Amino acid sequence: MIRALVWGENVHEQKNKVVREIYPDGMHETIARGLRESGGIDARTATLQEPEHGLTKEALENTDVLLWWGHAAHGDVDDAIVDRVVQRVWQGMGFIALHSSHFAKPFKRLMGTSCALSWREAGERERLWTVNPAHPIARGLPAHFELENEEMYGEAFAVPEPLETVFISWFQGGEVFRSGMTYQRGNGRVFYFRPGHETYPTYYDANIRKVIANATQWAFNPNITDHDMTKAPNVPVEKALEPIEERGPRLHAAGEEGFR
Amino acid sequence: MIRALVWGENVHEQKNKVVREIYPDGMHETIARGLRESGGIDARTATLQEPEHGLTKEALENTDVLLWWGHAAHGDVDDAIVDRVVQRVWQGMGFIALHSSHFAKPFKRLMGTSCALSWREAGERERLWTVNPAHPIARGLPAHFELENEEMYGEAFAVPEPLETVFISWFQGGEVFRSGMTYQRGNGRVFYFRPGHETYPTYYDANIRKVIANATQWAFNPNITDHDMTKAPNVPVEKALEPIEERGPRLHAAGEEGFR
Amino acid sequence: MIRALVWGENVHEQKNKVVREIYPDGMHETIARGLRESGGIDARTATLQEPEHGLTKEALENTDVLLWWGHAAHGDVDDAIVDRVVQRVWQGMGFIALHSSHFAKPFKRLMGTSCALSWREAGERERLWTVNPAHPIARGLPAHFELENEEMYGEAFAVPEPLETVFISWFQGGEVFRSGMTYQRGNGRVFYFRPGHETYPTYYDANIRKVIANATQWAFNPNITDHDMTKAPNVPVEKALEPIEERGPRLHAAGEEGFR
Amino acid sequence: MIRALVWGENVHEQKNKVVREIYPDGMHETIARGLRESGGIDARTATLQEPEHGLTKEALENTDVLLWWGHAAHGDVDDAIVDRVVQRVWQGMGFIALHSSHFAKPFKRLMGTSCALSWREAGERERLWTVNPAHPIARGLPAHFELENEEMYGEAFAVPEPLETVFISWFQGGEVFRSGMTYQRGNGRVFYFRPGHETYPTYYDANIRKVIANATQWAFNPNITDHDMTKAPNVPVEKALEPIEERGPRLHAAGEEGFR
Repeated sequence: MIRALVWGENVHEQKNKVVREIYPDGMHETIARGLRESGGIDARTATLQEPEHGLTKEALENTDVLLWWGHAAHGDVDDAIVDRVVQRVWQGMGFIALHSSHFAKPFKRLMGTSCALSWREAGERERLWTVNPAHPIARGLPAHFELENEEMYGEAFAVPEPLETVFISWFQGGEVFRSGMTYQRGNGRVFYFRPGHETYPTYYDANIRKVIANATQWAFNPNITDHDMTKAPNVPVEKALEPIEERGPRLHAAGEEGFR
Repeated sequence: MIRALVWGENVHEQKNKVVREIYPDGMHETIARGLRESGGIDARTATLQEPEHGLTKEALENTDVLLWWGHAAHGDVDDAIVDRVVQRVWQGMGFIALHSSHFAKPFKRLMGTSCALSWREAGERERLWTVNPAHPIARGLPAHFELENEEMYGEAFAVPEPLETVFISWFQGGEVFRSGMTYQRGNGRVFYFRPGHETYPTYYDANIRKVIANATQWAFNPNITDHDMTKAPNVPVEKALEPIEERGPRLHAAGEEGFR
Repeated sequence: MIRALVWGENVHEQKNKVVREIYPDGMHETIARGLRESGGIDARTATLQEPEHGLTKEALENTDVLLWWGHAAHGDVDDAIVDRVVQRVWQGMGFIALHSSHFAKPFKRLMGTSCALSWREAGERERLWTVNPAHPIARGLPAHFELENEEMYGEAFAVPEPLETVFISWFQGGEVFRSGMTYQRGNGRVFYFRPGHETYPTYYDANIRKVIANATQWAFNPNITDHDMTKAPNVPVEKALEPIEERGPRLHAAGEEGFR
Repeated sequence: MIRALVWGENVHEQKNKVVREIYPDGMHETIARGLRESGGIDARTATLQEPEHGLTKEALENTDVLLWWGHAAHGDVDDAIVDRVVQRVWQGMGFIALHSSHFAKPFKRLMGTSCALSWREAGERERLWTVNPAHPIARGLPAHFELENEEMYGEAFAVPEPLETVFISWFQGGEVFRSGMTYQRGNGRVFYFRPGHETYPTYYDANIRKVIANATQWAFNPNITDHDMTKAPNVPVEKALEPIEERGPRLHAAGEEGFR
C-alpha cells in the first residue's frame, strides 16, 4: 500500500457556497477518495487549519506521496513546514502539485522559478492531449479528454524545462498549457497537474482521478530512506578508494565538516 | 560588451595566508581579469563585505551575467539580496556558480535541491572530460584537460537532471563528478562549474579561464527585459483571443489579481 | 556569414497551380530570401531534381545549416545522400526540419522514432505560443502569433522528448502540437518547426521568417570540424593518461581497429 | 511475469577459447539466468545464428523487453530484422543495449547518432558511481561498485543527451564514461549499460545482474499495444473536435492518406 497524504488548503470550502456544495467534505477528501478507490493506495488527508498544517514530522515520515492543493492561503503556510516538506521530497517522498498549487510555497521552492502563468476564470472548455501515451502517468487515458468547464491557465508557464511532458491542454479561448510535467528533486519525484479549479467538479471526473492515481503510483519511491541526498560527507585521504597522498596546501583539518 | 559581475565572498583571501599569496587581489579579481582578457566582456567585481554585498538593485540591473564564488560565509549572505539575485535571474540575467558555490544560497534556490556532494581536500589530480564538445561552453577546449592539484567533489551530486552535461571530472582518488552542467530558470541561463578550490591557482589556468569566458558568453541574454516571467496576468473574458462566453460559477471578480 | 542551404523538394510547385501561384520561385527560394533579408546569413538553395539532389559532398562541406522542406517525395531521396546529410549533422552542421519534413528521411534518422502525428487540411487558424521566450530561437517574437490558414498537426507527435520546447500550437479544430523543439545529434543542433503547408503563404509571414532566421543562427556551430563524433579511437595501454599495466585476457591486438 | 528476450551475437563464444571458458553456455544464457533468478522475469534467449536471428515477428510480439549483446558481427544483422526490432520498440517494447552494442544497428537507429566512443582493452579497474540513487534502475545498488577487470570506454560518447544519467564510470587509466543512460523512443523505453566485455566474467557480478534486472523491470510497458505511435491518421474536417469549416485551397482529397 502506498501511503498518500492529500493536503488541502480548505479555505474556499469554508468561505464559498459554490465550492462547499460541490465539495461538501472538502476538495482534499474528494481527491483522497479517488485515490482509495483506485486500489493500492492508502490516502489520508491534512489541512492548513490543523496544528502544523497536519504536516508534522511524523505525518511526513509516514507519507510516500504528498498531494497538494492550495490557492487563497499560500502565504499562510509556515516556512518551517515548507522546509520540512521540501527536505522530505529530497529524501524520496513524491510530491504532486495540483492546479493553483503552481504558486504553493513548496512547489516554487522545488522548481526554483516564479511558476507564473496567465489565467482566466470563464468556465471554458479544456481539452487535455496525451503527448506521451506510454508514460506510466498516462496509462489507461485516452488520446484526449475534455473538461467542459475549467479555469484557463496559459503559457508561458515559468517552470524549468521538465524531464517529461505528459499532457498539454487546449483551451476554448485560444490558449495552450503544459498540463502534466514530471521532475525529480533529490530522491523525490515531482508531478504538476493543471486541472482542478474549485468552482467546478473536476475532481469527480474519471479521467482526472485516473491521472492523479497514476501519478501517485509513479511518484512512489519504495527505497525512500536508502540514500540521503542532503549530506555532504568528507572522504578522508586515507579512505580514498584509490591510494593517493595528500599534496599541497589545505584549508580544512582532516575529518572536518565543510562549510554550508 | 557583455556586462559581467564577479561576486567573491572574499573571506579566505583575508584570513588565510596561502589563499592570499595565490590571489593577492582576491579570487574575484583574478576571475574578472580572465574575463576581460577573453574579449567582449566588461567584468566588474563585488564582494560580501560591500554594502548590500555589492549587489544593489542598480548593480544587478547593469549586470548581464553574474558569476558567484562563495564558501565559508554562505550563511552571511542576506536573504533579501538572495531574493533580488534570483528574481534577476528569472528576468534573464545569466548565473554562473563556481566550485563551492554549489552550496551558495542563490544556487540552491535556483536548483530546488540540497546540492550536496562528497568531498576531499588532498590536492589530487582532476581531469575534466569534454562530453559535449560541440557545446558553446566547450568551444576551443581539448577532449580532456588536467588540474594537477584540486579538491575532490564526488557524486551523487544532488542537483536536478541538467539540460546538458558539458564536462565530467575524473579524480585520482577514484571519484567522478559532473563538473559542467547547464540549466535554465525563468529567462536566465545557469551554469555550474566545479573547479576552483581556494588553495590552488586554478583560476590562472588557461583552460579554466576559457570555460568561464565561454560560459559567460553562453549565459548572456540580450533580450533580458522583454518577457517578465514573474507576472501572472489575468486575461479577461472579453479579451480572450477566441470568442468565448463566461459560463458557470466563479470565484474571482473580473480583472482581479489572483492569489499568490 | 552563416552559410545556409535551403533544400526544397520542389514537387508541389511543379504540379500544383495553387502552390505555384503562391511560391512562383519555389518554397525554397522564398525561405532563402527570408534568411538573406534577416542579415548575417548567406542562403543558397538546392532541390530534389538536381544531381545528387544538390547535396554533393562539396555542397554540404560549404553548409553550416541545412534547412529541409519535403512532402510528396520523401521516398525519392536517395539513401546515400541521406547518409551524407546525417553524417554532416554529426560533424556539426545544423539541421532545421520544416513542416511536413517530420517524415523526411534525414529527420527520421536523426530522431530514431516514427515521427508520426495526426493531421487535417482545412485552412484553420493556428496560434503559436512562445513557451520559452528567453530562448534564442524566440528572440523578438511575441507571446503568441497567428496563422489564419494552416494545416493542422496534432499530438501525440512521435519524437523523442526534446531538449527544449520553444513553441506550442493551438488549433481552431481543437488540437495542440509542440511546434518548435530543439535537439542535438552528435555535434549538430536540430530544430523542428511545424508551420509551412504548401497551399498557404506561411513562408511570407514575418514571424515565421523570424523564427526560421533565429533558428538558423542558433543551429550554427562555428567549430564544425574540431571534434569528429564518428570515430572510435583505440587508446593503447602505453598511452593511457594514468599509468596502468595490461591485465587479463584480451580479444583485440594492440592498436587494432574495433568492430562496427 | 515480464517476458524478456536476451539476444546474443554468440560469435566470440564460438571462436575464442577465453570467452567460451567464461561463458560456456553463451553470454546470452548467463544474462538470461541472472534475470530469471531476479524474480518476476521470464527470460528466453535468441542468437544471430538462428533463422531470422531468433527475432521473428512472433518472437517479438511475445517480448516485453529485448536485451542486446553484439560486437564482432554488427554488420551481419539483417536490416529487415533491425527494422522489425525498431518498430517493436516504437510500439512499446523495452530495449536494453549492453556494452559493445553501442554500435549495434538497432541502438544506432534508435539514437540517431554515431554512438562512437574511445576504448582500451587492458583489464583495468572500472568503478561505477550511482549518480541518481533514487532511480528505479539503481534500486538496491550501492553508492559505487567496482569491476576489477574491464575494457575501458571513454567520453565523448556520441549519443543524444539522455533523459536521465544513472551511472558514470571511473577508469583506472584516467577516463570517465556515462555508463547508464535512459531514453524513450516512441512508446519504448531504452537503457544503455556499459559493462560486459566478453573476456571478463562481468555478467556473473551481483551488482551488474541487479542493474540489468532493474532495467528490465523499468523498461517494461504493460500497455504495449494501446497506442500505435507509427500511424499518422487524417482527421476529417467533419470529425474535428471543435466545429470548423474548411477554408482556402487544399492539396489532399478528403480522407486521403498523407505522404511518407
